[in-house]
Amino acid sequence: MFDYHKPREECGVIGIFAPDEDVASMTYFGLHALQHRGQEAAGIAVSNGQNIYLHKDNGLVSQVFTPQNLEPLKGKYAIGHTRYSTTGSSNIRNVQPFLIETRYGPLAVAHNGNLVNTDELRQDLLERGIGLSSTSDTEVITMMLAGAEGETWEERIRNTMGKWQGAYSLVILSRDCVFAIRDPWGFHPLSVGVLPNGSHIVASETCVLHTLGCVAIREVNPGEIITLSNSALSVYQAIKPAEPLAQCIFEHIYFARPDSVWNNLSIHQVRQRLGRELAREYKPTADLVIPVPDSSIPAAIGYAQTSQIPYNDGFIKNRYIGRTFIQPTDSLRKLGVAMKFNVIEENVRGQRLVVIDDSIVRGNTSGPLIRMLREAGATEVHLLITCPPIRYPCFMGVDMGQPEDLIAHRSTVEQVTEHIGCDSLHYLSIQGMMNAVGTSQGYCQACFTGNYPINIDHKLSKNEYE
Amino acid sequence: MFDYHKPREECGVIGIFAPDEDVASMTYFGLHALQHRGQEAAGIAVSNGQNIYLHKDNGLVSQVFTPQNLEPLKGKYAIGHTRYSTTGSSNIRNVQPFLIETRYGPLAVAHNGNLVNTDELRQDLLERGIGLSSTSDTEVITMMLAGAEGETWEERIRNTMGKWQGAYSLVILSRDCVFAIRDPWGFHPLSVGVLPNGSHIVASETCVLHTLGCVAIREVNPGEIITLSNSALSVYQAIKPAEPLAQCIFEHIYFARPDSVWNNLSIHQVRQRLGRELAREYKPTADLVIPVPDSSIPAAIGYAQTSQIPYNDGFIKNRYIGRTFIQPTDSLRKLGVAMKFNVIEENVRGQRLVVIDDSIVRGNTSGPLIRMLREAGATEVHLLITCPPIRYPCFMGVDMGQPEDLIAHRSTVEQVTEHIGCDSLHYLSIQGMMNAVGTSQGYCQACFTGNYPINIDHKLSKNEYE
Amino acid sequence: MFDYHKPREECGVIGIFAPDEDVASMTYFGLHALQHRGQEAAGIAVSNGQNIYLHKDNGLVSQVFTPQNLEPLKGKYAIGHTRYSTTGSSNIRNVQPFLIETRYGPLAVAHNGNLVNTDELRQDLLERGIGLSSTSDTEVITMMLAGAEGETWEERIRNTMGKWQGAYSLVILSRDCVFAIRDPWGFHPLSVGVLPNGSHIVASETCVLHTLGCVAIREVNPGEIITLSNSALSVYQAIKPAEPLAQCIFEHIYFARPDSVWNNLSIHQVRQRLGRELAREYKPTADLVIPVPDSSIPAAIGYAQTSQIPYNDGFIKNRYIGRTFIQPTDSLRKLGVAMKFNVIEENVRGQRLVVIDDSIVRGNTSGPLIRMLREAGATEVHLLITCPPIRYPCFMGVDMGQPEDLIAHRSTVEQVTEHIGCDSLHYLSIQGMMNAVGTSQGYCQACFTGNYPINIDHKLSKNEYE
Amino acid sequence: MFDYHKPREECGVIGIFAPDEDVASMTYFGLHALQHRGQEAAGIAVSNGQNIYLHKDNGLVSQVFTPQNLEPLKGKYAIGHTRYSTTGSSNIRNVQPFLIETRYGPLAVAHNGNLVNTDELRQDLLERGIGLSSTSDTEVITMMLAGAEGETWEERIRNTMGKWQGAYSLVILSRDCVFAIRDPWGFHPLSVGVLPNGSHIVASETCVLHTLGCVAIREVNPGEIITLSNSALSVYQAIKPAEPLAQCIFEHIYFARPDSVWNNLSIHQVRQRLGRELAREYKPTADLVIPVPDSSIPAAIGYAQTSQIPYNDGFIKNRYIGRTFIQPTDSLRKLGVAMKFNVIEENVRGQRLVVIDDSIVRGNTSGPLIRMLREAGATEVHLLITCPPIRYPCFMGVDMGQPEDLIAHRSTVEQVTEHIGCDSLHYLSIQGMMNAVGTSQGYCQACFTGNYPINIDHKLSKNEYE
Repeated sequence: MFDYHKPREECGVIGIFAPDEDVASMTYFGLHALQHRGQEAAGIAVSNGQNIYLHKDNGLVSQVFTPQNLEPLKGKYAIGHTRYSTTGSSNIRNVQPFLIETRYGPLAVAHNGNLVNTDELRQDLLERGIGLSSTSDTEVITMMLAGAEGETWEERIRNTMGKWQGAYSLVILSRDCVFAIRDPWGFHPLSVGVLPNGSHIVASETCVLHTLGCVAIREVNPGEIITLSNSALSVYQAIKPAEPLAQCIFEHIYFARPDSVWNNLSIHQVRQRLGRELAREYKPTADLVIPVPDSSIPAAIGYAQTSQIPYNDGFIKNRYIGRTFIQPTDSLRKLGVAMKFNVIEENVRGQRLVVIDDSIVRGNTSGPLIRMLREAGATEVHLLITCPPIRYPCFMGVDMGQPEDLIAHRSTVEQVTEHIGCDSLHYLSIQGMMNAVGTSQGYCQACFTGNYPINIDHKLSKNEYE
Repeated sequence: MFDYHKPREECGVIGIFAPDEDVASMTYFGLHALQHRGQEAAGIAVSNGQNIYLHKDNGLVSQVFTPQNLEPLKGKYAIGHTRYSTTGSSNIRNVQPFLIETRYGPLAVAHNGNLVNTDELRQDLLERGIGLSSTSDTEVITMMLAGAEGETWEERIRNTMGKWQGAYSLVILSRDCVFAIRDPWGFHPLSVGVLPNGSHIVASETCVLHTLGCVAIREVNPGEIITLSNSALSVYQAIKPAEPLAQCIFEHIYFARPDSVWNNLSIHQVRQRLGRELAREYKPTADLVIPVPDSSIPAAIGYAQTSQIPYNDGFIKNRYIGRTFIQPTDSLRKLGVAMKFNVIEENVRGQRLVVIDDSIVRGNTSGPLIRMLREAGATEVHLLITCPPIRYPCFMGVDMGQPEDLIAHRSTVEQVTEHIGCDSLHYLSIQGMMNAVGTSQGYCQACFTGNYPINIDHKLSKNEYE
Repeated sequence: MFDYHKPREECGVIGIFAPDEDVASMTYFGLHALQHRGQEAAGIAVSNGQNIYLHKDNGLVSQVFTPQNLEPLKGKYAIGHTRYSTTGSSNIRNVQPFLIETRYGPLAVAHNGNLVNTDELRQDLLERGIGLSSTSDTEVITMMLAGAEGETWEERIRNTMGKWQGAYSLVILSRDCVFAIRDPWGFHPLSVGVLPNGSHIVASETCVLHTLGCVAIREVNPGEIITLSNSALSVYQAIKPAEPLAQCIFEHIYFARPDSVWNNLSIHQVRQRLGRELAREYKPTADLVIPVPDSSIPAAIGYAQTSQIPYNDGFIKNRYIGRTFIQPTDSLRKLGVAMKFNVIEENVRGQRLVVIDDSIVRGNTSGPLIRMLREAGATEVHLLITCPPIRYPCFMGVDMGQPEDLIAHRSTVEQVTEHIGCDSLHYLSIQGMMNAVGTSQGYCQACFTGNYPINIDHKLSKNEYE
Repeated sequence: MFDYHKPREECGVIGIFAPDEDVASMTYFGLHALQHRGQEAAGIAVSNGQNIYLHKDNGLVSQVFTPQNLEPLKGKYAIGHTRYSTTGSSNIRNVQPFLIETRYGPLAVAHNGNLVNTDELRQDLLERGIGLSSTSDTEVITMMLAGAEGETWEERIRNTMGKWQGAYSLVILSRDCVFAIRDPWGFHPLSVGVLPNGSHIVASETCVLHTLGCVAIREVNPGEIITLSNSALSVYQAIKPAEPLAQCIFEHIYFARPDSVWNNLSIHQVRQRLGRELAREYKPTADLVIPVPDSSIPAAIGYAQTSQIPYNDGFIKNRYIGRTFIQPTDSLRKLGVAMKFNVIEENVRGQRLVVIDDSIVRGNTSGPLIRMLREAGATEVHLLITCPPIRYPCFMGVDMGQPEDLIAHRSTVEQVTEHIGCDSLHYLSIQGMMNAVGTSQGYCQACFTGNYPINIDHKLSKNEYE
């Protein structure tokens, strides 16, 4: 799988309690380190203990915020969000954080993940006579909190979160607290850290916490509510963690930034080990190992170390190809991939190549890349993938498309090999993948196996397909 | 009162049922004719019988809409809105129409007016556990409808509107109907018309209906719900009209476009008659009658006709002074008024002038205008105002500011005369004003008398003042 | 002729020497008062005695300038420009002022008018091996000055201006002078004034000088160079004025703002007298005189005074119809005029009308307006025009289109009457027009007579037509 | 040297003759592959054989062009430009290509490089009475061509280029030709290729030609003029190549994309060899070799291969840190580098590191990176640079700042080592650098040695310093 059809990044969240800092600026800088989890929209909400101020818009973090619109966001508590969205719903109404006034005061919510029972929850709200102004499950979460019972926000969150089925790494901002909540399955990461001056930060990935200078980093455990409102964290186990957990294995394979740590595992090192496991499973006779940059670099390094086949660059990625609004004409259509990757001919000419990539989703871009290598003179091209074939859609927040879009859903490995034109194709086995992670359980592998950790409503999945 | 401190225009609404037309374009063109009722934001919602599509943003109608964003708004039913907003709340969240999903399907609402019991209604919604995402009373209206009981939208509107105290000229869009609703006091205008091809249009002012080619124009009566959904209008008297009515006299004096008709009265002719009544009440010895353009032109024509004093232009208004973001330096500060109005010296030199203006709100701009006339050689300047002194704030949708901002609240006519430096100052009497309208009752005169037609919540008005 | 097809406004220029003021802000405010002479682009150049700084862009004055881009324009000398341009050439490269570096230092030029020998001058420059980067005759002027001989800029301007055939009201900015230059024919206005503090201002129209507070206003005489660089103006008669002069009569009829004075004549009073002359020439039996707003208001007032037929408003002009990017569909096409003007039915119903308009160029819009009046119940409509039929194109800066676009070029008055559907049509005679101005000579009447005051190159006019 | 203070990229140029293609789109796609040579502005000029059409603006290629503004650029011949500019002169007037009308027809010019005798050439033009509207040496080139003698453009270029001292890789567009010109010193690359259908393309780097599908790629030799106007290239040696040549060694070290080939050398392979040479010169006892991404990756791979020290990632670069308009507060200032690079702690903890970087210019960012590695637990950090110390400014198009900005200009290696806090610091020797390139001559090494290949005008260099 190549970047053009990567599983769509989900979202990134951040929350800060920092009485002596400019929390809006800190959140802004932190969001930059989460930009890889969503480039469509961004937002920051700040509370000064009384009112909550919000700015959000479509665009990259650096486009959404200016000194002018950050300036009014004064306070001690903040949450932020970066968002990926499909084109159809890239409506400003869906941009997060969501901010509402409730009978208990103002409340802002930012969410990473996807609920699988949104339809039922939404129906409940509508039946209560509530109007909903977006298609986001985050609005559902927000409205449920507005109607929750309980003396404190912590109590209300606790009383409500049991109804949420699916993935939610949440940061919630009230007048005088930032809450960090993680679903009991532990689908997506969420970690807290402390700054030397006693401020606390929560974020989707530890790379944010490191960027901002945190020490003493720990995860928000599955089912926990952690409250950031003074120098000590308040930790509450609201729901017993699921047994087994269902952590998203794709965070390790592709989503998370390699400098993050999740579940006590360095993402970069897991990826190197994915490469090493690949080398144990399949080692064609070859002269060179090359990665498809950037996501497969650690695995290719690992593969080279174990296989003792030399490592080098084979592709150069054009860093400036972002959104291109101009569609190439027919005669230029083949440029699509060439625009993003060029081959270093001198490195691959006459070589038998092992190419490492992280995944194949639709199978549209592997073929052109293989072809480019052959045209540059590679004599053999063996494609090795650091995960098993993706055969089933994800309902917990990863946009992989519908089953019929997934090449491995409708084709055998032999058919895929032929389709993309490589000399051989090897997918890492589930066992090899779990070896790299170092455990055989606690992870959701539904996109490979179809065994969903939560009962997926038939209607939901059906709707998704039609 | 001069344009710089005019009572802020409220809002304009429009609704269209037109099965054979491009309703989005029609609404767009119609909104242009309502632009004088609000230049801050605009929006259009369109239903194709199944889904409702919305585009709205801050800006003039011509800035908000492009062929690209109008194109997806396909359907047979549409509503539109132009909006004035104070700077503090010019948030995109307050821009109308509001669109929500309800248990009964999608619903879009556009509102002209202001409820006086918003705080209580809002509290009721919050207590029901609903979160509110804006400060607008229109969201309150929308959420109340989402929770209303009844078999049909008409029934639900009927069951709800009794709780709304204050001014509301509403257009509401459901999947397959456009509803036009006017409060029982009849505060602000709302009229329906039919196109030769059987389409129906509802709009705040008849000038829109004329622009779009309507015939057979009638008002939406106070307390009525009119449904536009097929070739025949469905008219329902939901609430008995208030006795007496409380139509906003300021629509006649200043708001409405002179080519509109309201309450069977031509706005232009009412304004001419305001001038005639002024001439009957006060006629200084003078050589020339001049208006403060543009709003006082009809009254000045009427004054001249009755007084037999010749009419001419004395001021030229710069049509291109809109929003100026550059603040003049101290030495240029006096330019403020000069930027907007210049005197035609040759017309006023050596003349004794009667100057007709429609109102004095804060009293900041009359003085400079008088001064400009004197500097140009006018020998006497008599200022005649086509309404009585404005002494009380409006809670039904007209932003006149707080009492202490109103010069007539804190000063006698003599003090105002002295403050602005005219030779004499005459305000039209309430009797004269009502003579021009042709009736002595059915109008809200609260800004002159302090007698509010609805009981104003003490807390509300207090809040407004603090 | 109605506003949609008015002869295109030309340009407005301003120059300021003000050692103790913020000249950029003054220029900015002054440009607002010239906005009616061009809404396509604007620019300001400022010299601090050493360097010249420039900001210019497409858009209205209020759109082009912000506090941020005005701030760096520090200095004591400034010139500014507002520009009208045809769509095809609304290239940023044509936006003025033009700023170049020359062997004599920096030079900025802003121009109102059009040279008729641009092609020859341009060819001369090209033959000298100079590359030209725009299609503007102002670049030609600027490049000629860069290559001019002479000790001082005044000398160089003097040595060059004799080669310019056509209309030029110029303001030129060097390191330490602002120059005001007017062609010897005196085609377009240019006036200087002094501020109470001794600063000097030059501008296309006196309304600017009044807005900024000038006293002691005088014209830049035809053929003069006036230098603004210290407390005393330096006036130099560089070229003998043409005999007779060829002042553009259309400035009186339509272009200039009514509060300006040109050639010692109040524009507003000239227009009133045009109406009075019309009344002497043609007075149908009628009940009401109405203007086509805004430009015909003074003439209609004058007509009413002399004819003793009552004056009133018949049309309301929508002030917010500016640039509309949305094209109406076929069924909405007829809205074009209705969008801009509505009739006040109550004023015209059952009336025999005299309608005053300033000109007919293409004849496309008079018809719809007449029709609107009839549909509103007018029993007779007599259209009276405050100038003779426009039969010939202008080569001196007024974009009236090509001869075949001019309805009076290809049709008799009877044909025009029939085409637009009025009961009678009367054009003011040349004699009447000149009576209103108070002289029979010194004005260019070429658009009526075809007698051009300058020999028009056959090739030029041919090119224009093809 | 780290990316924040990299020598500023110069510019990229492209030219296309393609009678059967959409040349504007091809140029657009080609410019994407040159984006690394300048992200400030971009432009495309297209000729249809008669007229030249131009669009250019500030911004990235993907921001400057839209389907709307590309659409009018119809033709068979095109040139394009991407531009780096210092903040002070990022004026739209300096954006390329420059387009002028000359006595010989229209001419557009795009330039990569910098002339060292601009001041004299500029003075010559001014003395000829020409006005110049920008500070760009490209305008000087353009104006000189407009005034050149000769029957054809090729002749005129030939007659003029002898006067240009300095670096110029030029693409020039006339009505019916694209010319590719390279200075006789061969400072910067320029190559031509042919498409299978016979179209020809010229571009700054071969990566563009590969992206667009060219075959048969060759360089434009120093001093050559190559004409693209039909199926055969016309090649003309206008000036004898300098002996020795003065190719910019920095293209190999840093500027060019690794997948480009220059002087028959693969950039990626040269960089690997720079790493190998480094390993031969200096090999501290170490556990790991890490690059400063992205530019130093090939050298680090080469170093690891030769030194047999394992290769791995140590830094992760945030790809989304582009222009950040928000300045961090004092307490967040240290975030500057952390925003751009994070350390992978697990990879470096307890390790003795060899860090490979391509250059040190100002020395501001190496220190923070070293510190980050130490804080992550690295026990030793040895910094190895793939070029010698940069001690002298460049006058041929590479913006390295003024001498006093260059840390190696004012400090010894020992002082630099101490300043940035590494355990040891080694710069590659000139000999080693030239070994990697494979020759000892033909390259400009002035930034290391101060021996400029062209006589630098004393005044120019002095001006640069003041």
